[in-house]
Amino acid sequence: MDEGATSVELDRAHVFHSWSAQGSLTPLAVAGGRGSEVWDHDGRRYLDLSSQLVNVNIGHCHPAVVAAIQEQAAVLPTVSPAHAALVRGRAAQAVLRHAPPGMAKVFFTNGGADANENAIRMARVHTGRDKVVSTYRSYHGNTGAAVVATGDWRRVPNEYARGHVHVFGPYPYRSEFWASTPQEEAERAVHHLERVIQAEGPESVAAILLETVPGTAGVLVPPPGYLAGVREVADRYGVLLVLDEVMAGFGRTGAWFALDHWGVRPDLVTFAKGVNSGYVPVGGVIVSEEVAATFEDRVFPGGLTYSGHPLAMASIVAAVEAMEQEGVVLNAARVGADVLGPGLARLAAEHPCVGEVRGLGVFWAVELVTDRATREPVGAGVMGRVRTGLLERGMLAFLVENRIHVVPPCVVTDAEVHRALEALDAVLTDIDATIDEETS
Amino acid sequence: MDEGATSVELDRAHVFHSWSAQGSLTPLAVAGGRGSEVWDHDGRRYLDLSSQLVNVNIGHCHPAVVAAIQEQAAVLPTVSPAHAALVRGRAAQAVLRHAPPGMAKVFFTNGGADANENAIRMARVHTGRDKVVSTYRSYHGNTGAAVVATGDWRRVPNEYARGHVHVFGPYPYRSEFWASTPQEEAERAVHHLERVIQAEGPESVAAILLETVPGTAGVLVPPPGYLAGVREVADRYGVLLVLDEVMAGFGRTGAWFALDHWGVRPDLVTFAKGVNSGYVPVGGVIVSEEVAATFEDRVFPGGLTYSGHPLAMASIVAAVEAMEQEGVVLNAARVGADVLGPGLARLAAEHPCVGEVRGLGVFWAVELVTDRATREPVGAGVMGRVRTGLLERGMLAFLVENRIHVVPPCVVTDAEVHRALEALDAVLTDIDATIDEETS
Repeated sequence: MDEGATSVELDRAHVFHSWSAQGSLTPLAVAGGRGSEVWDHDGRRYLDLSSQLVNVNIGHCHPAVVAAIQEQAAVLPTVSPAHAALVRGRAAQAVLRHAPPGMAKVFFTNGGADANENAIRMARVHTGRDKVVSTYRSYHGNTGAAVVATGDWRRVPNEYARGHVHVFGPYPYRSEFWASTPQEEAERAVHHLERVIQAEGPESVAAILLETVPGTAGVLVPPPGYLAGVREVADRYGVLLVLDEVMAGFGRTGAWFALDHWGVRPDLVTFAKGVNSGYVPVGGVIVSEEVAATFEDRVFPGGLTYSGHPLAMASIVAAVEAMEQEGVVLNAARVGADVLGPGLARLAAEHPCVGEVRGLGVFWAVELVTDRATREPVGAGVMGRVRTGLLERGMLAFLVENRIHVVPPCVVTDAEVHRALEALDAVLTDIDATIDEETS
Repeated sequence: MDEGATSVELDRAHVFHSWSAQGSLTPLAVAGGRGSEVWDHDGRRYLDLSSQLVNVNIGHCHPAVVAAIQEQAAVLPTVSPAHAALVRGRAAQAVLRHAPPGMAKVFFTNGGADANENAIRMARVHTGRDKVVSTYRSYHGNTGAAVVATGDWRRVPNEYARGHVHVFGPYPYRSEFWASTPQEEAERAVHHLERVIQAEGPESVAAILLETVPGTAGVLVPPPGYLAGVREVADRYGVLLVLDEVMAGFGRTGAWFALDHWGVRPDLVTFAKGVNSGYVPVGGVIVSEEVAATFEDRVFPGGLTYSGHPLAMASIVAAVEAMEQEGVVLNAARVGADVLGPGLARLAAEHPCVGEVRGLGVFWAVELVTDRATREPVGAGVMGRVRTGLLERGMLAFLVENRIHVVPPCVVTDAEVHRALEALDAVLTDIDATIDEETS
């Protein structure tokens, strides 16, 4: 049997998958990758418009990051977090070099979920309060508190944590606030957040936890004024602002952190994915001077065996340095502004099935609708055809509900983006026809 | 400035540590390691009696595992868990090769905490019940549900999850059940567990979650009959038995899984650490055929970006194969039975400050007391002297409360164990004198 068939056979026999009914899966066997491409065992190549769950910002198999992992593996792959490791201090420096002002320390975790767990823990101990306010349109990870902070369907079967309150965030295309402009949407979303905090009792609220740009929920770029308004509300009630940059951070939006676009000051920032493009599992919390000071004399009641894992730390140092030296974040910004953004806007103008495109950098969502007037989302059948159509054209997409998330690596080239836009154009043309039939 | 000083300086400036007040730390800067030794930046070597939080079962920098990481890094460090990856199927096979009968699949996570989170999730969906019964003397990880399943002090500031109930487990040296023999302790602990389940309402209990050998709680080897009794109780009430083998699994006790010593049949087994000696952060849940069947048609409501991470998978395949080929588990069993166990028993006989030694394989605790009759634990001052005394003699120990946990890598040699026993003998002689002074 060839390796591709063996890969799928072993997977189906013995590997239990995330967020799925196990009997329904037909996984693609990926054999390798480089830059913005991956390939299967038969050598068929795919342009990776998914970045593997919006993860490999620096692309696949970046030689400098690979070399750093190889070197660290030979020296000391792992060490207890209680000991000091030079590479860990250097990784903290690399992260803090791009963090907003006022940030002092980094607590390293295994991924984004436990980064949010520990940020919530810090906020609770720091404020002496319990509740965490987050949005319905959000995803914060799969562990106990993170999954209940999450707003989307993944929370519902997992509501075993207390102290979580949900609000609606801004989403001009599908406003919950009867707003008619982005400015109005921002003002009303801030008002709604403040009213919920008042009604919950501000003295019970430890933190507002937000993805700076909600990702899986639809690349919901916050309208002007929203984050500044949230910061004001947080300050007014002594609540910490935790920004989840697990998906949006480290270049994805064309900035080191998405929060840079709005100059908002967070108390805690959580990260994972793009920090080392997921080459080694890692995440973390960036801690402000003020919150760090709380734990100088007080025991921080959290921790984990792999905190500050040397192999992960080496990959962070190398990934951040390579991104600095190679202008990877600038590339994401330029591609977004000059090629991908305008290209997607053109597709939106030409294809009736596109309700809206929105995004920043290499972080975009194309929302498909059956009718531009009603904004009715397309169904699962249509999205299945989108997936197949893109795969046939050598494109790996990240599809969520009625949306195509176009999230290639930050190193994607203009030529690759043009190939992606052509494939999308063809697929959307098919979908236009389908929708015409369905609605005629 | 030399590298050791830089390491500590960067650590103190920018690295936020686990389970600590940040202002009180004086970390040792570890530069490298090999086998059972690590060294600092000045070349001073330490015999690693801690295995870095009971983690590096295969020792430091095992060449086959290092090579596997290096090779996989160059091919494909990461991939979405939705795709198939040949190395992931092979890692699942390697884990299942040593799992008890009736186990079908593996769900890979980032570590032990989220392994327990996902095992709890599976048990809840499978049974349609909420509560999880675990013991006070336990540690199951730092995330939302795992930390509330935990029994020790780390739970108390983190009680934000519901559905957790705690019981006392067996501990013959400090019985909660007024038992006078290990058999009686086992019977009474099973009875207590059953009474709590009855009183909670068996129809509300999803799982009994136990470390097969509670580790940080004191290497509490279960007395004969306990685990069989627990299994009977679980069966009687339709409750799943989840065995946490994060610390005890993959050779630590001289068996592939600690559960092998008692032939107990679990429904779910969680693992991390020893599976790949933590060279890449990873954990997982071994899922029985029966539980796996539940999720054939039903969506499993859990998942994570780094599930089945190729770099981690490659390290699992290499670590398990190296342990098989080199007889690493047999070495742990032999060292425990012939050298370390008898040596510690001799120290216990000779030193009045030792209340009890207990363990299996390379998993031992030496419990220090001020008085053998009252079994009064020694205080933090004495344990500080133990730490200093061992460090001065080139020994890195894992100290918990009043105990020295002697938990070297499974590859430890007889000569290394003899060195450790000599150092322990000297330190315990000092402590004997201290205790005599204090009590005279």
